[in-house]
Amino acid sequence: MFDPTDEHFHDECGVFGVYNHAEAANLTYLGLYALQHRGQESGGIVSVQDRIFHTTRGQGLVADVFKQRELDALEGDKAIGHVRYSTTGGSANSRNLQPLVVDTADGGLAIAHNGNLVNGTEMRRMLERRGSIFQSTMDTEVIVHLTALSRENTFSDRLVEALKQVQGAYALVAMDENQIIVVRDPHGLRPLVLGKVGEKGIVVSSETCALNLIEAQFWRDVEPGEMVVISPDGIRSYFPFQKQKRSFCVFEYIYFARPDSNLDGINVYNARKAIGAKLAEESPVEADVIIPVPDSGVPSALGFSQASGIPFELGIIRNHYVGRTFIEPQQQIRHFGVKIKLNANPHIFKGKRVVLVDDSVVRGTTSRKIVKMVRAAGAREVHVRISSPPTTNPCFYGIDTPTRQELLASSHTVSEMCSYITADSLCYISLEGLYSALNAKRVDYCDACFSGEYPIPFPNQVGDQQLTLLKESFYK
Amino acid sequence: MFDPTDEHFHDECGVFGVYNHAEAANLTYLGLYALQHRGQESGGIVSVQDRIFHTTRGQGLVADVFKQRELDALEGDKAIGHVRYSTTGGSANSRNLQPLVVDTADGGLAIAHNGNLVNGTEMRRMLERRGSIFQSTMDTEVIVHLTALSRENTFSDRLVEALKQVQGAYALVAMDENQIIVVRDPHGLRPLVLGKVGEKGIVVSSETCALNLIEAQFWRDVEPGEMVVISPDGIRSYFPFQKQKRSFCVFEYIYFARPDSNLDGINVYNARKAIGAKLAEESPVEADVIIPVPDSGVPSALGFSQASGIPFELGIIRNHYVGRTFIEPQQQIRHFGVKIKLNANPHIFKGKRVVLVDDSVVRGTTSRKIVKMVRAAGAREVHVRISSPPTTNPCFYGIDTPTRQELLASSHTVSEMCSYITADSLCYISLEGLYSALNAKRVDYCDACFSGEYPIPFPNQVGDQQLTLLKESFYK
Amino acid sequence: MFDPTDEHFHDECGVFGVYNHAEAANLTYLGLYALQHRGQESGGIVSVQDRIFHTTRGQGLVADVFKQRELDALEGDKAIGHVRYSTTGGSANSRNLQPLVVDTADGGLAIAHNGNLVNGTEMRRMLERRGSIFQSTMDTEVIVHLTALSRENTFSDRLVEALKQVQGAYALVAMDENQIIVVRDPHGLRPLVLGKVGEKGIVVSSETCALNLIEAQFWRDVEPGEMVVISPDGIRSYFPFQKQKRSFCVFEYIYFARPDSNLDGINVYNARKAIGAKLAEESPVEADVIIPVPDSGVPSALGFSQASGIPFELGIIRNHYVGRTFIEPQQQIRHFGVKIKLNANPHIFKGKRVVLVDDSVVRGTTSRKIVKMVRAAGAREVHVRISSPPTTNPCFYGIDTPTRQELLASSHTVSEMCSYITADSLCYISLEGLYSALNAKRVDYCDACFSGEYPIPFPNQVGDQQLTLLKESFYK
Amino acid sequence: MFDPTDEHFHDECGVFGVYNHAEAANLTYLGLYALQHRGQESGGIVSVQDRIFHTTRGQGLVADVFKQRELDALEGDKAIGHVRYSTTGGSANSRNLQPLVVDTADGGLAIAHNGNLVNGTEMRRMLERRGSIFQSTMDTEVIVHLTALSRENTFSDRLVEALKQVQGAYALVAMDENQIIVVRDPHGLRPLVLGKVGEKGIVVSSETCALNLIEAQFWRDVEPGEMVVISPDGIRSYFPFQKQKRSFCVFEYIYFARPDSNLDGINVYNARKAIGAKLAEESPVEADVIIPVPDSGVPSALGFSQASGIPFELGIIRNHYVGRTFIEPQQQIRHFGVKIKLNANPHIFKGKRVVLVDDSVVRGTTSRKIVKMVRAAGAREVHVRISSPPTTNPCFYGIDTPTRQELLASSHTVSEMCSYITADSLCYISLEGLYSALNAKRVDYCDACFSGEYPIPFPNQVGDQQLTLLKESFYK
Repeated sequence: MFDPTDEHFHDECGVFGVYNHAEAANLTYLGLYALQHRGQESGGIVSVQDRIFHTTRGQGLVADVFKQRELDALEGDKAIGHVRYSTTGGSANSRNLQPLVVDTADGGLAIAHNGNLVNGTEMRRMLERRGSIFQSTMDTEVIVHLTALSRENTFSDRLVEALKQVQGAYALVAMDENQIIVVRDPHGLRPLVLGKVGEKGIVVSSETCALNLIEAQFWRDVEPGEMVVISPDGIRSYFPFQKQKRSFCVFEYIYFARPDSNLDGINVYNARKAIGAKLAEESPVEADVIIPVPDSGVPSALGFSQASGIPFELGIIRNHYVGRTFIEPQQQIRHFGVKIKLNANPHIFKGKRVVLVDDSVVRGTTSRKIVKMVRAAGAREVHVRISSPPTTNPCFYGIDTPTRQELLASSHTVSEMCSYITADSLCYISLEGLYSALNAKRVDYCDACFSGEYPIPFPNQVGDQQLTLLKESFYK
Repeated sequence: MFDPTDEHFHDECGVFGVYNHAEAANLTYLGLYALQHRGQESGGIVSVQDRIFHTTRGQGLVADVFKQRELDALEGDKAIGHVRYSTTGGSANSRNLQPLVVDTADGGLAIAHNGNLVNGTEMRRMLERRGSIFQSTMDTEVIVHLTALSRENTFSDRLVEALKQVQGAYALVAMDENQIIVVRDPHGLRPLVLGKVGEKGIVVSSETCALNLIEAQFWRDVEPGEMVVISPDGIRSYFPFQKQKRSFCVFEYIYFARPDSNLDGINVYNARKAIGAKLAEESPVEADVIIPVPDSGVPSALGFSQASGIPFELGIIRNHYVGRTFIEPQQQIRHFGVKIKLNANPHIFKGKRVVLVDDSVVRGTTSRKIVKMVRAAGAREVHVRISSPPTTNPCFYGIDTPTRQELLASSHTVSEMCSYITADSLCYISLEGLYSALNAKRVDYCDACFSGEYPIPFPNQVGDQQLTLLKESFYK
Repeated sequence: MFDPTDEHFHDECGVFGVYNHAEAANLTYLGLYALQHRGQESGGIVSVQDRIFHTTRGQGLVADVFKQRELDALEGDKAIGHVRYSTTGGSANSRNLQPLVVDTADGGLAIAHNGNLVNGTEMRRMLERRGSIFQSTMDTEVIVHLTALSRENTFSDRLVEALKQVQGAYALVAMDENQIIVVRDPHGLRPLVLGKVGEKGIVVSSETCALNLIEAQFWRDVEPGEMVVISPDGIRSYFPFQKQKRSFCVFEYIYFARPDSNLDGINVYNARKAIGAKLAEESPVEADVIIPVPDSGVPSALGFSQASGIPFELGIIRNHYVGRTFIEPQQQIRHFGVKIKLNANPHIFKGKRVVLVDDSVVRGTTSRKIVKMVRAAGAREVHVRISSPPTTNPCFYGIDTPTRQELLASSHTVSEMCSYITADSLCYISLEGLYSALNAKRVDYCDACFSGEYPIPFPNQVGDQQLTLLKESFYK
Repeated sequence: MFDPTDEHFHDECGVFGVYNHAEAANLTYLGLYALQHRGQESGGIVSVQDRIFHTTRGQGLVADVFKQRELDALEGDKAIGHVRYSTTGGSANSRNLQPLVVDTADGGLAIAHNGNLVNGTEMRRMLERRGSIFQSTMDTEVIVHLTALSRENTFSDRLVEALKQVQGAYALVAMDENQIIVVRDPHGLRPLVLGKVGEKGIVVSSETCALNLIEAQFWRDVEPGEMVVISPDGIRSYFPFQKQKRSFCVFEYIYFARPDSNLDGINVYNARKAIGAKLAEESPVEADVIIPVPDSGVPSALGFSQASGIPFELGIIRNHYVGRTFIEPQQQIRHFGVKIKLNANPHIFKGKRVVLVDDSVVRGTTSRKIVKMVRAAGAREVHVRISSPPTTNPCFYGIDTPTRQELLASSHTVSEMCSYITADSLCYISLEGLYSALNAKRVDYCDACFSGEYPIPFPNQVGDQQLTLLKESFYK
């Protein structure tokens, strides 16, 4: 949804698929609905029946794109779906719809992809030089081209050959007329799980919360580097790629995933609470009340409260009707900004020493507004605690982030940031504290946005400016 | 928003008005946006400038009804607005838009009304016998007719004469070409507050949360039975009606109002927390975790947790994208019901003795589904605690409630209800506990929905069946 | 439809009704569709079943307002409908929807009205003084008020009492829970016909073309001053009003009605052809080709051609896709105006002496553009022939016309107009010629827009300026 | 527009382009609007500025797809556009939008195409075998692939190399960041003209009527087999393909083109009139009146009337509001079919011997309904005259036609068809008469739909069934 004050990093996709279920498209629709937080710009479902690929894709929320008529048209017992977040407001959006559906020499093929390739632009140029044409700006089209170019005999072998040529993050659900193939990149950057639904149905999803909605049973995570082929011949697992260091995106725990999902066996809600508790331990403060910045800051604030013994209160109320259609009127007098979405309850803040818990600071402007609002509501002291380390580096693995220049933490010390947001104190959880809270080994995760240590090397040693250019697109 | 599992009582309106501000309509739009929880079916704003009444009214959320074009057309430094909830799905909705705008012998007149008249139908019949015609099913039209019929000299006197003939609940904002008049019924059943905005602007609102959004200063509550006339001659207060026992709707504290609003000086969030704490005191239970049914059960669950020392957890996650456009696909196999909206996080429930805190039980079907979902998520025991007394009687003062027959509590003991919803225990707060938590005297409130003690007598001593009929409408 | 070049007078309404047919609303929908040329701004249908009035009204074309869902909801074997043209672009449109539906002491009541009252404003003021309120700016609301105020015993008697108090033009279709009542004003200004449909169904319509579409049989015209009561007791005809000179609107023949309709027994297409023929006789010209201005000028051009022996050619092509949604782009360079809609085929015009036949000249700007376009297409001479006399006076009987000042003919001689539109010659049919062509007596018709002889006197002898004011409305 | 009774053959596209004009996209929008009759299912415009390709494409009429916002976004002094007709109601439509825009090794490229390839499927399979992927079912994508695969140095040379590999009909407008290239296939099957607009602007269009609207000057037809390269280096003409027999589609004269367009120097309106006159000569009949089936039958009926001396009358009235949104209500009783659109004026038909003139008979069902309607309106005799020879064969060059089996004339003699449509007589113009009327040599035209003599041979000598399959698509 449109949110005038939202500075968060944004996930770029959620994927879902159902194999061997009479209501494949209906279940996919519900699955995408549960994954809506991973992408609100567009959605799509492709089903296949008797070699015919039925497609509905459109801009907007899942509930806007699909009505009964669209769902009814999506016949077949196999379906894959996709939700997408997109930053570019231009007309490219209408071209960048997923799942991609193409016709190839070997028949139809649909792919839904969460992630971003590091050598996507390079491969694109290579393919173009070879004579390929591109109709979107999505890396997914690169994968589809490479698959179609492969001379291997089976769909899975062709897909393997294609994926061996790319580097980057991908959680893929691909479908031809017979089978669904699920792949997670060797680093396992983006999440992907398998479940079982109905008597014989198999379901694949970015997160487990979508399994719950359709009353599917969680089966297992797809492993980094694993390809699972689900076909009339059964379900087979392969590890066709060179083994890589596991590097699961730690930010999924901090912000992206829904709190009722489990990622690699760790429940997100519990993880956030533990991070909050660790934050309380690392950066304690004498205060009267712990207040989350809703909604994403709630679990870590709760953990902070439980660990510190300082009471938790929902002192900031979020307007539930903030949506894409809201137009802030052109006021001569003032811009109401963050107040459109959030309101500080003076009865909670009056005269209090307050700890505000949030998950991240991106540009800092929203944090600054919230601190000011909270002071105007009567807070005596405002201590800001952030349940992630400072975000100093952009992501190139499928998350929409500002460029390095726009990230406040990339050019400011914590002390400078504290001044900027006008807080009495500002503390971030440490990288060590983060992994300690997750009870996890740092080596297994990607935390490049905090550390700048990118697990996948860039082609030709590009510098920061070029990294930024990598995010630009040909189309507008 | 459409909510497939929402059985709550529903407020029927929110009102707002701005006097003497260059951006009267813009501020009214923002005010209605902050009052959206009081009515999501339709919205409207009327402004007046040089005797011309500009009107935009429509079905849907405030953000859907008003775009820049509509706002631009609402010229003038005076405006009033209205949001409305409506149960009837029929075409009557398109006729029941507020504010009502009419032309009378004394000029134009616009009225926005929150509440319901007890003698509305009777007065309607009387007026019809006199030759009046009705174009809507709203009681507000009765008040407008009576105002137009009055032979008094001033708008305020005509409105007084009209209101003296009706009994019931009303929080009114009326506007003619020169002034805005604000009236609250002698019982003060529905809330209404005054604020100041800009240099000389006056604002009126159902709740204080709307003042906060536009950065208006809260001035004071409108008193029961008070009429405030805001005109170029200044602001004058009158008490033209026979004094009545104050009977403010106690359910506003329990569910209707936004937690960041203050009602008669009591903060709603604090009130809910205190009710939760009292509930913990009245109906303690050995448990491992306190879980609110989101979103309305959160503050009372927090109060219950703080009072009982049992940890509070957000174990049930609400899908933020539940909206009016969502179509649950026609599944051959199953109906997903409450899971569309709520998901129980198994990591929180597994093996736990759980206290579920909710604000009310209406028909009981949703509570039953939630208890079952929570058990399926692994809860060992499920104790339900309700932050209101059993709702045994319908409301006739402006709240949309089911008929008595549909209210589970009207025909079932608490023990029977506990069985029905399959909980291990079910407890409601007592009436005494409720007022104790509010630190208030019961005599000042209306709690007819719990007690059946209606503060305003019905004309001709009608029975329950007739009460039900009173809620029926002529139109479909 | 929106038409950037349309200067025509506009009919303000079409009415339709069906009694005693299982598909009353469906037939009414089709009827309104056939009457769409009489009003494109809004449409509505009311059906009644078991005392419940079902209503759908909305802005836009009939096909936009009614979808299957709306039609399905319009249950009952009686229905009335309305299409409306409206000039005011303001928000008053959303209030001025017809049929009006009201609740009165005697039950529900719906009215659809084509026409305009001469004493509407006066009666409105009188009713307001009495205490009545007005929610629209339509004269129809006056009639409804008067009906509701009547103390007569039957609906028909109440309606008669109401109509005896008003002067002006009305073709009315009224409906209560039992019957449909059809009335045409004593002058018979606007058309109204009866038909039979199905086994026992009765249908009423502004024009006969709508009977054809639903395969109803034309029965007869409603007579001026006649009231037809169609009820379970049968069909009864009354003449309750003082007899007046018949004054049927002659402009219906010239422009308003569809060519396949018959008005008072005269076929409109034939009438237009006869007028064209008479025009050829009155104002002959040596020319090579007769070209109609499409679409309304076609029959008279054909008549002109057949009478003169000069060949008829469709030399100006109309773009069929001109519609309300068309946005002419904001061009830096030029405004394409009439060319958006009409294109002159140079192959027809090159070197020719052309007679352009049109039905009227209102402001003259469009005629001027067309003449210029035709010259640019190569015409050697352009002779304009108009199948109506000069329109010098506004209409107060239900037709939307510009004020007198805006009517080119009110302040210019034919010679001056000819210069203005840059034609080689300009001739209008004479009043005598017009009636001669219709084979009719002038005394039976209203031709006030040509002659200024208004058949219904205005209250208090108002002057022209006041006449204009009569057209202004309270609301915007 | 949706037309419940329209059985016509449908043109599949119109193309338009503007080079070197500050308002390129605005002019293209107006041009497409004038070409709307060539395709009502979808429309699109691509402009280019500083190497950025701006695109808006959508389903619906031009006026629906483009609003001011869309037009404003289409920056640049070069633009091409497309309107498309499509039979398939399935979701493939959303993929088959034109102009196609792709990124290639040589930069961006946009193509708008009218026509159909004979070896499109074959080339598609070849390209797929080579590894190419297809995202639409349009032949245009084949051309784009071939262009991208070419290793020639310039855009024009690459396009030539691509087009040399395809056989079929194409009128192409292609654009890269610097130039617009216009090509017409060697047979010249589909029309394409050049014009000049403004000081230095060049415009290309399917028909001349679109030049008129934007006040461009007609310059000349693009020749069969000609490629015109419009670039900063000037305008250059090439004939890079092997010369072929000219075979311009004769049906463009009969039905497709707008009457105010000129095709290869022949005015369409005049052509139709001449065909009607020839038809009168070939198949005279004693009758009282000549009636066109509107709107397409009008010019030939006029020609028939002028040649025969029998009066022409517009006896069948077309409802101008027939549009895509019209829903015929589900009637228990009857289906109104053709009457929704056409109404026979009984005053014209009563007792008359009627000649109905139409342009073609496809399945025959509509003709049958019209004859019956005309008899019901009172016609004594109904003689049907068709201004084309019997349509016995499908088109494979860009026109949407039914399969051979569905064409009434493919399996019925004229006498049988006459019986089927219940006419008193039925005559078609002869092939010889057709060309005589056009004053043209048959050898220069394609009349395969009448004669079965296809000017472009099919690959591998396919039979009729395979021809039909050629029209099937992979997607639904």
